[in-house]
Amino acid sequence: MSEPTARRRGRPPRAESGDTRDRILDAAREEFSERGYEKTSVRGIAKAAGVDSALVHHYFGTKEQVFEAAVAVAFAPALAAPDAIAEGPLDSVGERLTRFVLGLWENPATRTPLLAIVRSAVNNDTAAAVFRRLISAQLLRRIAGRLDVPDAELRVELAAAQLVGTAMLRYVIKVEPLASADLERIVARLAPVVQGHLTGG
Amino acid sequence: MSEPTARRRGRPPRAESGDTRDRILDAAREEFSERGYEKTSVRGIAKAAGVDSALVHHYFGTKEQVFEAAVAVAFAPALAAPDAIAEGPLDSVGERLTRFVLGLWENPATRTPLLAIVRSAVNNDTAAAVFRRLISAQLLRRIAGRLDVPDAELRVELAAAQLVGTAMLRYVIKVEPLASADLERIVARLAPVVQGHLTGG
Repeated sequence: MSEPTARRRGRPPRAESGDTRDRILDAAREEFSERGYEKTSVRGIAKAAGVDSALVHHYFGTKEQVFEAAVAVAFAPALAAPDAIAEGPLDSVGERLTRFVLGLWENPATRTPLLAIVRSAVNNDTAAAVFRRLISAQLLRRIAGRLDVPDAELRVELAAAQLVGTAMLRYVIKVEPLASADLERIVARLAPVVQGHLTGG
Repeated sequence: MSEPTARRRGRPPRAESGDTRDRILDAAREEFSERGYEKTSVRGIAKAAGVDSALVHHYFGTKEQVFEAAVAVAFAPALAAPDAIAEGPLDSVGERLTRFVLGLWENPATRTPLLAIVRSAVNNDTAAAVFRRLISAQLLRRIAGRLDVPDAELRVELAAAQLVGTAMLRYVIKVEPLASADLERIVARLAPVVQGHLTGG
């Protein structure tokens, strides 16, 4: 990692440093959301944050690492959830997972970065790898670890597939009547399906 | 629609015309697959096909119309399938739909254009509208028309969501173990789920 350029006159003092880091992450989220992974550049993020590119590299490293950091920050609250999802009663884990995933898409604050991740992951293998790490390691493996069934990981992935596909058709492609259907009606239909994937015979 | 430019010396003779049209469609499929909807231009398609842009406009109209034509050609065999899916015995429609959708993704000849459509639809609202028309009008509505249940369209869409999500995680994001799992194992798990969506209580 390179040091900040002379233009910034060395590393900013500690108090300012947190603000700058956050400003870069905010700018990164915006840029990745608007342009997708491929068209976003570290230079563009730096410009949007009002800093030098070298400072972005200094804090985060490569574009892939900035992307991963931006994604992790956007999902910090969400990524704390898997424990609660996995640790509650096993016979209602399907409903908890369904509400969690659809809740991320219903909330504009998480929908925008999610959409950016999906767009980037579909278009770019590096971004797909980040997405894969995020959903596999953070969410799916932890739920699979709680299940006492054969093929736990495959089951969790097929459950996730139901939710990912619903999100695609409802929030991204916007197919009707699904796009306008009441959330509770969808949860009522999907929770038993997801539960069946996870713990069914 | 504009007439071909003078450079082409008027409309090509009838025999050549079909070949040219096919060549433009092949080029369009390639361009949309490689670049996605947004980055593809009529000029680029024309160049790849070795014809003048005006000829592309002459045959197909706007970029959106070229896209729709290229998609329709890529899926011509697939788009004949909904009748067979919908018209067979209702108690095995889940398995037929599951095999049909995963079959499109297993076959490299349809996977490439499908991936192009998904990429384009996720990134661009116009392409999303084309995708929506394709899957709603051609496939989902026709299956829904056969179902004698309340909420037939919503059911078909949630069934489709299971399959779309599975395709995303298996063929696009490539999450393991789903990406490498045996197809028959996945069909065995999904067919009853899709059937349940379509005809379950």
